[in-house]
Amino acid sequence: MPRVGVAIGDQVLDLRAAGELGLLPEDLAGLVAGPVLNSLMARGRAASARLRAAVSALLAADGRGQAEAARLLVPMVDARMHLPAAVANFTDFMVSRDHSARLGARKNPAAPLPPAFVHLPVAYHSRASSLSASGAPVVRPNGQRGEADGTVSFGPERRLDFELELAIWIAGENALGRPVPMREAGDRLFGYGLLNDWSAREIQFLEMVPLGPFLGKSMATTVSPWVVTAEALAPFAVETAARPGEDGPVPAHLQGAGRHGLAIAMEVWLETAAMRRAGDGPARITATDFAGMYWTPAQLVTHHASNGCNLLPGDLLGSGTCSGPEPGARACLAEIMLEGPLTLPNGERRGFLEDGDAVVFRARAEAPGAVAIGFGECRAEVVPAPEWPQ
Amino acid sequence: MPRVGVAIGDQVLDLRAAGELGLLPEDLAGLVAGPVLNSLMARGRAASARLRAAVSALLAADGRGQAEAARLLVPMVDARMHLPAAVANFTDFMVSRDHSARLGARKNPAAPLPPAFVHLPVAYHSRASSLSASGAPVVRPNGQRGEADGTVSFGPERRLDFELELAIWIAGENALGRPVPMREAGDRLFGYGLLNDWSAREIQFLEMVPLGPFLGKSMATTVSPWVVTAEALAPFAVETAARPGEDGPVPAHLQGAGRHGLAIAMEVWLETAAMRRAGDGPARITATDFAGMYWTPAQLVTHHASNGCNLLPGDLLGSGTCSGPEPGARACLAEIMLEGPLTLPNGERRGFLEDGDAVVFRARAEAPGAVAIGFGECRAEVVPAPEWPQ
Repeated sequence: MPRVGVAIGDQVLDLRAAGELGLLPEDLAGLVAGPVLNSLMARGRAASARLRAAVSALLAADGRGQAEAARLLVPMVDARMHLPAAVANFTDFMVSRDHSARLGARKNPAAPLPPAFVHLPVAYHSRASSLSASGAPVVRPNGQRGEADGTVSFGPERRLDFELELAIWIAGENALGRPVPMREAGDRLFGYGLLNDWSAREIQFLEMVPLGPFLGKSMATTVSPWVVTAEALAPFAVETAARPGEDGPVPAHLQGAGRHGLAIAMEVWLETAAMRRAGDGPARITATDFAGMYWTPAQLVTHHASNGCNLLPGDLLGSGTCSGPEPGARACLAEIMLEGPLTLPNGERRGFLEDGDAVVFRARAEAPGAVAIGFGECRAEVVPAPEWPQ
Repeated sequence: MPRVGVAIGDQVLDLRAAGELGLLPEDLAGLVAGPVLNSLMARGRAASARLRAAVSALLAADGRGQAEAARLLVPMVDARMHLPAAVANFTDFMVSRDHSARLGARKNPAAPLPPAFVHLPVAYHSRASSLSASGAPVVRPNGQRGEADGTVSFGPERRLDFELELAIWIAGENALGRPVPMREAGDRLFGYGLLNDWSAREIQFLEMVPLGPFLGKSMATTVSPWVVTAEALAPFAVETAARPGEDGPVPAHLQGAGRHGLAIAMEVWLETAAMRRAGDGPARITATDFAGMYWTPAQLVTHHASNGCNLLPGDLLGSGTCSGPEPGARACLAEIMLEGPLTLPNGERRGFLEDGDAVVFRARAEAPGAVAIGFGECRAEVVPAPEWPQ
């Protein structure tokens, strides 16, 4: 059975074992005895802060259980990773002004943003069942595709894309019908990871008017298994990105005191089958920063619950594609392809993803005077579409 | 703890108690011992067919446990009803050509249907956490609303609507990446109920470009608690509704042999606070039939899994608003309001829903030579929006 662990350098502290040995406060031990983090998440931010302090104390050089705890460390390379929570609900947002404007400009250069973009963090419900942890392969989907002659064909998706996103894990629960004002939103943020919102662009563009993306997204979503807690990221809080004057003020119910943006450097690396055969490492194709996003995690929570929608422990929010303004900060191939295919270091060219391509996301929270925090890798390889069952 | 029961006239047979008394085959007893139907749903259609036969045999006049079973009958009026399954994923479709064309004609009378409508059953992922069983109140949501002068305000939704839909419960499971062809889709249909896809039209219309409905739907969805099994509905199978010639042929992968439509007469009744005070019964405002829908439940399953998306036991599909061609078959207020407010029998007028209004859905499967089957009621009353927390 999967178990909960804490990353300590290149090792993992087995928290269930630590709890069984009496090395953790009893109530906390009970919250990390299961295969997922939902019980801990249900107790809100306070419990995870106490757990963090308890683990720190345990591993301190003079900690009473330090020697015992050292025996519970498992090399990270030997651990098989899983999804950190049983996800009841998965919502995907659209927090980057640059991503939205860059893609919207194709249709309407004069008004490239979706009409609601400056008023609220635009979002859609996405699919929880097809979430996988980093490492699981992504099967290229079959689907219906609009052809240049106006007909619709059925077959393997030809424009398979990634989207680099921040994964936001929810703590606590609000009753159905009970909103979460901005001053309470921070307590609902358990922690963060990386998320690849795989996108089948042909399927998506045919289906999405008027109800939004559906089968273009639901074949797979990959999540990094490590959760960086909100406590650990506190030193990396930043002011929200500047809001252009023409966008008008932030709606009153989404205004919050304090710095609730986050400085996280995020990268996309691509490794083709040819690169793997040649023993080359992956090539970096995108570098962006979450600090430049238009809406913050706290605003996503308050907006999401503003209609009384109940957010549950272990619910997952995807930030949406985290593109920045620079050409090298385009965080999906649909944006990159606006200027044509990529040329990789080995001379290969890429429009959309080919079978055998592996997409790897990496991230680090960085701030002056703070020790940087690495995120767990989010990686998956594309495998061929299945034959349609006869 | 909630328990599983079978409706027998105006009584309920307690299946957990029947299992504990040894009145059911042991494997089936294990599947209905919990608070929800997911374990039974996981075994697929075959297990529910066997359960149905076992209950029939038990209650037959000469059945061995008939007298014992009779003691396990609870009057339906004394039973408190719950959601029939723990719903991991809830998807909402758009199966009515009349609904889609009627609303689309406002924007584009020459081409009123969404571009993909004739190629695939258009759908979106919806919100599982805010599902409730019939009887739970619906809290009017707060949200952002576009005003006539182009500004956006925040406050209680003023165009709260219902949508009359069929609830479709999923049996069995396909592995992620594994499609479900039409010949297997019938086995994935566990049973049916009624579903009110409550819609906040101001919130929805502001937010839905380009990612679809989100907060306009996620404040509440009401489901009838009784599941009419697919076996019980077999006598009510009908040919799919005729497809207009200009729509072209059904895509090959969505073609299925046999009659996979369903004849179910569906109704909406409205009871205002004034009607309730006066002791009047509710007034019928919509009468439609599922037989006229453009896409069938089996096609929804095959489309949904065509990209490899895994459908889980207890997943819920909403059919979408089941409007028919007649003026009296408009199955949401947004359609009714195209011709102006309703006048109710007591002289009250209704545009959209007011606080205190109760919306009640009823349905009956009917076919020549078959005993009609009633569906459980789907009812909820609208209560006022909360004050925004200060």
